[in-house]
Amino acid sequence: MPDAFLFRLMAADGAARRGEIVTPSGTVATPAFMPVGTQATVKGMLPEAVRASGADILLGNTYHLMLRPGAERIAALGGLHQFMNWPYPILTDSGGFQVMSLSGLRKVEERAVTFRSHLDGAMVELTPERAIEIQALLGADISMQLDECVRLPAPRAELERAMGLSLRWAERSKRAFEALPQASAGRALFGILQGGDDPALRAESLCALIDIGFDGYAIGGLAVGETPAAMLKTIEGVAPGLPADRPRYLMGVGTPEDMIEAVARGIDMFDCVLPTRNGRHGLAFTRRGPVSLKNARHAEDPRPLDEESTCPAAREYSRAYLHHLVKAGEMLGAVLLTMVNLSYYQELMAGARAAVAARRFAEFRHDTKASWAQGDLPPR
Amino acid sequence: MPDAFLFRLMAADGAARRGEIVTPSGTVATPAFMPVGTQATVKGMLPEAVRASGADILLGNTYHLMLRPGAERIAALGGLHQFMNWPYPILTDSGGFQVMSLSGLRKVEERAVTFRSHLDGAMVELTPERAIEIQALLGADISMQLDECVRLPAPRAELERAMGLSLRWAERSKRAFEALPQASAGRALFGILQGGDDPALRAESLCALIDIGFDGYAIGGLAVGETPAAMLKTIEGVAPGLPADRPRYLMGVGTPEDMIEAVARGIDMFDCVLPTRNGRHGLAFTRRGPVSLKNARHAEDPRPLDEESTCPAAREYSRAYLHHLVKAGEMLGAVLLTMVNLSYYQELMAGARAAVAARRFAEFRHDTKASWAQGDLPPR
Repeated sequence: MPDAFLFRLMAADGAARRGEIVTPSGTVATPAFMPVGTQATVKGMLPEAVRASGADILLGNTYHLMLRPGAERIAALGGLHQFMNWPYPILTDSGGFQVMSLSGLRKVEERAVTFRSHLDGAMVELTPERAIEIQALLGADISMQLDECVRLPAPRAELERAMGLSLRWAERSKRAFEALPQASAGRALFGILQGGDDPALRAESLCALIDIGFDGYAIGGLAVGETPAAMLKTIEGVAPGLPADRPRYLMGVGTPEDMIEAVARGIDMFDCVLPTRNGRHGLAFTRRGPVSLKNARHAEDPRPLDEESTCPAAREYSRAYLHHLVKAGEMLGAVLLTMVNLSYYQELMAGARAAVAARRFAEFRHDTKASWAQGDLPPR
Repeated sequence: MPDAFLFRLMAADGAARRGEIVTPSGTVATPAFMPVGTQATVKGMLPEAVRASGADILLGNTYHLMLRPGAERIAALGGLHQFMNWPYPILTDSGGFQVMSLSGLRKVEERAVTFRSHLDGAMVELTPERAIEIQALLGADISMQLDECVRLPAPRAELERAMGLSLRWAERSKRAFEALPQASAGRALFGILQGGDDPALRAESLCALIDIGFDGYAIGGLAVGETPAAMLKTIEGVAPGLPADRPRYLMGVGTPEDMIEAVARGIDMFDCVLPTRNGRHGLAFTRRGPVSLKNARHAEDPRPLDEESTCPAAREYSRAYLHHLVKAGEMLGAVLLTMVNLSYYQELMAGARAAVAARRFAEFRHDTKASWAQGDLPPR
């Protein structure tokens, strides 16, 4: 394993952890939320605005970037950090998830997944080795193995097949990663647990991945159709078995509540499009739960969205103005609400980190959920 | 005339002028370009970004704001400055131009213009008195009289009729403005010259407006279908007759070249959607002329758009990245290019001001146009 990549476990409170991930591009305080920069941009956000929201690390999408503008092109332009003007840590996914969710036609075989590009219809092949190569070209601080993610519910045989394939791809990914010159530069590779909602398959995936050995471990195949309770049960099943000295990443999750419950079960990292996507559709995440700015009750409301927020967008504009921007379809509405949401997600992670460090995570979790349950303040 | 509104003519070089407009919300250095904040937002821009581009003053659209969210609502929320979080000067148009250009069905009568809202199809009436009332409700620092703008080319009889009507509406606007309590608060009212491309009608409009007496004079009815040469000829015809101690505003103009040529003929103020609209469509205005970021020649170009620009968006991102954002339809592409364009427009005005003050406007005009004519740097 490379020297410079490091995970420091700094405190624990029950299963909840407070840590730090050191990467070549900087340090990430955990629990951490990673905003999603799909096409080399967090939609509508200047990089300095993403940074100001409190983000230590971004997620980049291998699938999107390999199709446009292309990994070799980004490499020739100095890598993804320089391309998108974000000098801080970047984790890239392997492209596997978007192959499943965005590509109409695909064929999964032992050697590779072949799919039709959603952009121009061209047939494209992705092997575990190519996924590693692409992420190296992008210059990711943390790369992910290629895996196959199955939508739930699914028959056990299907879960077992995909889990087994993901494990074999994990081995190939590790070998390809170790063969890269960059492996010595402190970059990291994470393995991905699969197995759906089947405890035995999850346990098998866990043991085999640990045998291969990764810098960190992700839980994949969740938030793909199962209930929140089933998701938490799966996390509870695997988290205790994961090495305590490696970061744990719950992929594609989630709502504020999902994240708090996952932190309570030992998860360190999250990514999700909810704060950005919902921001573009008029929904704000706040201390008092979600608030839809589309709602006519805001039309004459001079109050800011949340005067106690750390985010200027939540303090310096009236609800009436945000409502107007959303109704008028103005870009600035999407921009301001994305800022609000990214800031709230980071505020939540910062609160969780402080609470774990102070050994009062249970209290934080209770108070946070009680505040959401109160609901938004009534209009004047 | 109110006490606090003031125009100071600080220098002149030939017909070109360097001045300052003092309003209740701050001072505007002239020649000035006013970004257009159609629906209470300069599209995609945070107000602080508009300010950082160098803008002293914004334009707000009465037509859009009266329909959504409504002038009375904005007034109840503290006025347009507070609503859109822009504490600096605001000029509002009268709504007349958008009634002509956006409303499918309209009826112009002596008393009022009646039109169908482009939002919900409702019939709406706008009188000169209501246009003044709306602008007062918005809290505009500078209000415009209601006028009728005729698209060119047009028969002389039609130009004469619209010019005459605009003059009678000018008188009614002035009376309505003087009856407002706000008139004493230092706010200003501008009259609008009409008469199309007919010198005699323009002269008649000019004399009659000066007789009525306004805080500033706008030239309307240009950039509506005539050639650039015809536009400049009309400006040359009227500018010398306008009072030297009042600001002169050329409405809806224009390209960088239009503005430089109009400054050379004595114009002090401009507004135009070109920098914002073109920015959203992948076109950048630069020292070396317009640059289309859609063009494939930028796809692998690591150079910034213009490393000598005052705008970080022009210096800190590669052309390859801007090209990628535009091709991918990403909001950030629109945001960055709008910043670039607003900054370039302000840079141009700042250059013109400095040149007039230094009595070297002819040299500035020549050098600026020579730089545009050079065209963009070739790709590497």
